[in-house]
Amino acid sequence: MLKGFNYPLTPKGKSTLNPPPPWHYSADFLNIEFWAKSSAVAALLPAGLDPDPAAEGHGSAYFYDWQFSGENEEYLDPARYQYREFFILLDALFKGRPVSYCPYIFVDNDAALARGWSQGYPKRIAQVFQTRYYAATGKAGPSLAPGSKFAGSITAGGQRLAEGLVTLKEPLSDLAPFGQRPVVNLLHTPRLAADKQDKPPIHELVENVPHDIKIVQAWIGEGSLTLPVCKGEEISDLAPIRTGKGIRASMAYIVDDLKTLKDLKK
Amino acid sequence: MLKGFNYPLTPKGKSTLNPPPPWHYSADFLNIEFWAKSSAVAALLPAGLDPDPAAEGHGSAYFYDWQFSGENEEYLDPARYQYREFFILLDALFKGRPVSYCPYIFVDNDAALARGWSQGYPKRIAQVFQTRYYAATGKAGPSLAPGSKFAGSITAGGQRLAEGLVTLKEPLSDLAPFGQRPVVNLLHTPRLAADKQDKPPIHELVENVPHDIKIVQAWIGEGSLTLPVCKGEEISDLAPIRTGKGIRASMAYIVDDLKTLKDLKK
Amino acid sequence: MLKGFNYPLTPKGKSTLNPPPPWHYSADFLNIEFWAKSSAVAALLPAGLDPDPAAEGHGSAYFYDWQFSGENEEYLDPARYQYREFFILLDALFKGRPVSYCPYIFVDNDAALARGWSQGYPKRIAQVFQTRYYAATGKAGPSLAPGSKFAGSITAGGQRLAEGLVTLKEPLSDLAPFGQRPVVNLLHTPRLAADKQDKPPIHELVENVPHDIKIVQAWIGEGSLTLPVCKGEEISDLAPIRTGKGIRASMAYIVDDLKTLKDLKK
Amino acid sequence: MLKGFNYPLTPKGKSTLNPPPPWHYSADFLNIEFWAKSSAVAALLPAGLDPDPAAEGHGSAYFYDWQFSGENEEYLDPARYQYREFFILLDALFKGRPVSYCPYIFVDNDAALARGWSQGYPKRIAQVFQTRYYAATGKAGPSLAPGSKFAGSITAGGQRLAEGLVTLKEPLSDLAPFGQRPVVNLLHTPRLAADKQDKPPIHELVENVPHDIKIVQAWIGEGSLTLPVCKGEEISDLAPIRTGKGIRASMAYIVDDLKTLKDLKK
Repeated sequence: MLKGFNYPLTPKGKSTLNPPPPWHYSADFLNIEFWAKSSAVAALLPAGLDPDPAAEGHGSAYFYDWQFSGENEEYLDPARYQYREFFILLDALFKGRPVSYCPYIFVDNDAALARGWSQGYPKRIAQVFQTRYYAATGKAGPSLAPGSKFAGSITAGGQRLAEGLVTLKEPLSDLAPFGQRPVVNLLHTPRLAADKQDKPPIHELVENVPHDIKIVQAWIGEGSLTLPVCKGEEISDLAPIRTGKGIRASMAYIVDDLKTLKDLKK
Repeated sequence: MLKGFNYPLTPKGKSTLNPPPPWHYSADFLNIEFWAKSSAVAALLPAGLDPDPAAEGHGSAYFYDWQFSGENEEYLDPARYQYREFFILLDALFKGRPVSYCPYIFVDNDAALARGWSQGYPKRIAQVFQTRYYAATGKAGPSLAPGSKFAGSITAGGQRLAEGLVTLKEPLSDLAPFGQRPVVNLLHTPRLAADKQDKPPIHELVENVPHDIKIVQAWIGEGSLTLPVCKGEEISDLAPIRTGKGIRASMAYIVDDLKTLKDLKK
Repeated sequence: MLKGFNYPLTPKGKSTLNPPPPWHYSADFLNIEFWAKSSAVAALLPAGLDPDPAAEGHGSAYFYDWQFSGENEEYLDPARYQYREFFILLDALFKGRPVSYCPYIFVDNDAALARGWSQGYPKRIAQVFQTRYYAATGKAGPSLAPGSKFAGSITAGGQRLAEGLVTLKEPLSDLAPFGQRPVVNLLHTPRLAADKQDKPPIHELVENVPHDIKIVQAWIGEGSLTLPVCKGEEISDLAPIRTGKGIRASMAYIVDDLKTLKDLKK
Repeated sequence: MLKGFNYPLTPKGKSTLNPPPPWHYSADFLNIEFWAKSSAVAALLPAGLDPDPAAEGHGSAYFYDWQFSGENEEYLDPARYQYREFFILLDALFKGRPVSYCPYIFVDNDAALARGWSQGYPKRIAQVFQTRYYAATGKAGPSLAPGSKFAGSITAGGQRLAEGLVTLKEPLSDLAPFGQRPVVNLLHTPRLAADKQDKPPIHELVENVPHDIKIVQAWIGEGSLTLPVCKGEEISDLAPIRTGKGIRASMAYIVDDLKTLKDLKK
């Protein structure tokens, strides 16, 4: 009788962290391509995923300014459903198929954290920021033009974990690369029972299957990224050896499903 | 090969939200007894728990200022492991045995949220505050003396969800009531896969089994509590009809286990 | 030898809350017209300003998502210089001239608070949010079209102080009304010295003189606004009797000067 | 007719950031002694203060967990009046008299920022944390005993500006050193008027004159402190060459006055 997709479950289902799917998303984002040590990338992949030998440590870092909504205009409660996000995707192979794996992801909102955990995104809470583009431009921000710069930063537990920069060069007309590598995550739920702490009840490889993906206002140029050494954190093991393309665009999509690729408990 | 109790799982296990149990806790807390409508309490209980007819809607509200640590002096990273919490416990019965059920709980820290979810505590993120007692007193705060007042407040999604007040009367010598009702939670993990959204993989009644519980510096007096009506929230359905005792004390305990009472999926 | 516009003053002037003017701003904003009790408006006006008898309690509420920069691409440090704001402007007269007076204003950033105090804006810190418009639209947010809705909310000290909503009707072509009433503030600095606490060293009426104002992408429609009663707050004395137009637009301007209209100490 | 010590000024004086003095404070704090380059200390001193040749770059760093109150039990609104603080004091001379000067200070609360500015403390907003001592001890925190450790950290604009550690050795019986050097600040208010930006209306050396100072539960031992290099910040110019004593104690005092030592504009 209790209702709610995530905690808490209540008689009317209003207090739950999230309404039931479908989940609607819109965002502005920065995407920065980089190459880390191949061994650092390989060390982060869960069982069932293989390093992509062609990738040579290739990955991408992303800064997102998101707006979320369920089916009932939840975007009209921006204090609860608007959020910012930083994450990293690493090239990998699943049974020889090119995929992306997300080892690190941070948001500034609990509803986003809960949705992420339902999709295998290993989210933590952080403070994330990116430079905004406004229709009314001036010296307070970049226009969408060659040479314009957009920066991103993320701080968790009081430590600056990453800084990125995208310098625009030209509009991006070919959006095909965005869809080529699906995101495959490790869906994991631990068990606190003393005799089962090494037997997680949920431990699967899952594939994200978002749909109605729109990408607009995309510009491409150069990216830069730093992942500083921080106490109690391992993300700096992915510190870029070099960086590549940088993209700044807007996107929207819908999430209402998740596909299990492999149950790792068996 | 990947390590970590909670997300994220990494080669060295440093980035994880939480070290493995045992988990050590110390806190100052306020405890406010109240009576809500019996029907409102009954409506919040999950399958497997029954209303306690003797309770007449009895519950308690708690404000905690916590410090957490694993086995490696994690309390020396207070930005990551110190947190504040508000929660409600409702009297209920499990197979005729008096227990407490937690329908609402809020913290200001992601590691605490993750540990809570592992124990069936349906935590969301909020801003929680309580009046502090300092060894160096003056007019900036209460002393531990008759008539002293301690207040608590909690705000989630920008809305004030609860306010509480404890007025001290006398030291509390009999701590027996603290252990009488174990906390029984609904351990719940949703499934996003489109054809399984009504089939949560984990849906159990679990009993919290903390140990080495210490309660010191306890004072008892009168409590008051308000649960205002808020948009998109149901907690005000528990608005107190009357309030009773108020307690202010310090406590410590250890968590390293969880007991499943009943698998509700079967 | 110490440098810095605001605190702290240091040898190189890097740690200061703000670079020296000119200050560049870009934003998206919501503007909601309302009428409060005329007596409540009159009670808030400082010496030197008179109620505008034609206004009948007229004022406006604003939600802003700002990006700030000095002359050195400060917008590339969005964690430090991006911020959100809520404020109210009330119609008044200065020597018979129509002006606007700002009795309440809140931001989520200390640099913005410091700049505001330099201009007589009586800023406090709060959490402010407004619905965003993204180039990639969907059900996660409004498009710029008739019937689209944008909401704003603000919470200070854990209490929800205001909620607003703008429903778009049509593009706004005539921007003339935006410039008609200059903002006149009470520039005030208190004195802590025991014998001078009633003799503020700075207590002036000042006129804001921003320039290079651009307003684009403006839509007009209907506005609604609530100012709930909150403990320890007076803003609800302005609770709207009725509301009028609502606007959603983007703007940019430059601030590098302030004009003293009247020294109230003399 | 408008009331309020700080902004905003309103008819009833309830919305103001701070009630009028006297201001009451209680806290737990960490104090870490350090020596920076003498030239770095000298470079930070304002006109009217001289380097203390005997100090050899000596200063102290402080982490405070504060509770504030005016005369009306403001400590019962902890969301508004409880706060955390980090600051540095440097040895200096005023007309040959030993004093302390505060070049950097950070709090997580706007009311505290406003009170600080009234006293010449150049406060910015940050996230500050220190390890807590609880009456109910365990492995979640230190007891007051030899070898116990207390840590502090501070993050502003997303960057970790300082980390400190105090390791207790023994109770501190002689509290005399706490009162020997009064705090002398630079009280500074900028002027935005274009032709007066180099003529601050308030620019004075002021002496803090707190009274009814109580220090209790004091322990002394060793301190350590790091001030990492951060973008857009100068605090790391004070990076310790060596550190000395560390103290952990509780204190209370009252502030209701400020003494001007020298008007630097003349």
